[in-house]
Amino acid sequence: MNASEHYRALHRIAEEGFCEFETKKYILGAIENMGCAIYEVGKTGVLAYFDFGKSTTSAFRAEMDALPITEKTGLPFASENVGCMHACGHDAHMAMLLSLAERLSKGCDVLCNVLLIFQPAEEKRGGAETVVSSPDFLRIAPERIFAIHLRPQLEKGKLFSGIGAIYAGSSEIVATFCGEQAHITENIKNDALENAARFYIGTKYQAKEEGLLIRFGRLCAGTAGNVTPCLAELCGTMRYFSEPEKISETEILLRKAKKYGGEVHIFEYAPPARNSGELFELSGCSRLSEPILCADDFSVYGRVCPHPLYMLLGTGDTPPLHSDEFAFDESILRFGEEKLFYIVRNEKISKVI
Amino acid sequence: MNASEHYRALHRIAEEGFCEFETKKYILGAIENMGCAIYEVGKTGVLAYFDFGKSTTSAFRAEMDALPITEKTGLPFASENVGCMHACGHDAHMAMLLSLAERLSKGCDVLCNVLLIFQPAEEKRGGAETVVSSPDFLRIAPERIFAIHLRPQLEKGKLFSGIGAIYAGSSEIVATFCGEQAHITENIKNDALENAARFYIGTKYQAKEEGLLIRFGRLCAGTAGNVTPCLAELCGTMRYFSEPEKISETEILLRKAKKYGGEVHIFEYAPPARNSGELFELSGCSRLSEPILCADDFSVYGRVCPHPLYMLLGTGDTPPLHSDEFAFDESILRFGEEKLFYIVRNEKISKVI
Repeated sequence: MNASEHYRALHRIAEEGFCEFETKKYILGAIENMGCAIYEVGKTGVLAYFDFGKSTTSAFRAEMDALPITEKTGLPFASENVGCMHACGHDAHMAMLLSLAERLSKGCDVLCNVLLIFQPAEEKRGGAETVVSSPDFLRIAPERIFAIHLRPQLEKGKLFSGIGAIYAGSSEIVATFCGEQAHITENIKNDALENAARFYIGTKYQAKEEGLLIRFGRLCAGTAGNVTPCLAELCGTMRYFSEPEKISETEILLRKAKKYGGEVHIFEYAPPARNSGELFELSGCSRLSEPILCADDFSVYGRVCPHPLYMLLGTGDTPPLHSDEFAFDESILRFGEEKLFYIVRNEKISKVI
Repeated sequence: MNASEHYRALHRIAEEGFCEFETKKYILGAIENMGCAIYEVGKTGVLAYFDFGKSTTSAFRAEMDALPITEKTGLPFASENVGCMHACGHDAHMAMLLSLAERLSKGCDVLCNVLLIFQPAEEKRGGAETVVSSPDFLRIAPERIFAIHLRPQLEKGKLFSGIGAIYAGSSEIVATFCGEQAHITENIKNDALENAARFYIGTKYQAKEEGLLIRFGRLCAGTAGNVTPCLAELCGTMRYFSEPEKISETEILLRKAKKYGGEVHIFEYAPPARNSGELFELSGCSRLSEPILCADDFSVYGRVCPHPLYMLLGTGDTPPLHSDEFAFDESILRFGEEKLFYIVRNEKISKVI
């Protein structure tokens, strides 16, 4: 089967993070006779290890999870799980890895051992952690790790990357404000909704030139129009490119929330990327014109793997990721496959340790 | 049974509006042998009509419904329906009417026919409408209608009232803002949460000296911290003392919402009170020092009944209405009972037509 066939099959069975049971079954079926060692990670993750007896290992990571989105692409292979859709290209990422596995299984001039990582739950917190804390991953301990992610608005079929922080770190912000619950006509001193709204207006912030974004997507306060709420909860996202920046912004958020009688809790999703300059130069990818504010828990692998490289495969003029209409021309998968194949056969890359 | 016993029995079986089935059963049981005609109104309302062959009729209204509140009074007769509590005194109001019914059934020098109204769902929209649109009520067509409502912070055991608009009209405000749903990093033009928050900050308003209140108790927007919401909904309350004021404030709300790309819908709960000056003077109630911003759908009866009088029975220094700790000294019920009995036997009152 080629990458396109795998992609279509996986697209049909879209599943949310940590629930990728059918997807796991599909992957296990696809790789079972390929001569690789297979390890399960958590409930749904899969590692496929091709041990060619080489001295170093390159790992390749694809995410397995889809999104809670009702697909509106009208594709003949649209998701059969209503309300769940591969709208972030993870099906394509898996398909390219399965295609690489097939090539590897047929014997070819590979210069390193290869670990294929099928990772659960990139869209949730904890997917990459599941892998990097697994004994099998830690024993194999790849020197290099690569990922390809589809990217709308980049030139179709072309691979892009960069050095250092090419995509953002991401933290979830939860701000809570407790108030006095009372009949709306009571003169209360502490209105949770008012405090949350004032905090929101004073905090929503985007400084794109500085590569920082603080925005909120959800506010829930109260139960009725005639009762002041006992709680208002505001959920948002911080995107940043450096840890000191994150720390100083967190302090500002805490101070602002305190001013309005609230509390802020910050949950780290993923640190900023830290792309290997050496691998970037050897990869032959084009250089991104600017870092992107998207986040990916691929950066978590950077904690245990010395040389990470995150690459973007342009889909051209398509709907954005996470759109219910996201679709792309499958012919681009070939360029991703070729890049992966190039990497496992490049002598200089296999010596980056 | 005296008013206190009725009060305790009704307090135990607190039920929400339009679901007062046990309460209705209790009332029917209490009045079945009292010689009055009994009419059912809607599913749970009850009319008890004492036709003494007089030329005019005084009606007395008590509400039947409780609130979705988990009682924390610790009373030995606390609500047995978990999550539902008589926290607005409706149990006491019904008890005083049942006590009056007992006196009427024993024969006494009454100068008018008496209609007792046990009305469902004062706390929801539509309770009073259920009664005023019922054929039995319209046929009986009382000339005068009275209600007593408990009121914390007024002198304990004393009855208060006033002329004209002594309590506010109330409308529910629902403001909706549609926005672009997208990943939080997208540069969207129309952020529903931001629009709702700015509308809220610019609209929350209380001008007590003018007897106007516009406040919001609930804001719901979005589903996740990393997706901009497609909808933000803000629910609030308008309290006012005159129709022209309501109309002009509604126009201001509509304009403000439009400025932020939103829409406002106003749902009337009850118009302002319109107390009969003649009845107030004859009632012997003390005069309220100022109108109160609370609303009661008792005002709906003013549409069909020429002489309404709403009276407040002070509970003194008790927790506020709608508090999960609301309780009061039952000895005050006697003062309410005596006032009702005074009204049905007052010659001048029976001639107010």
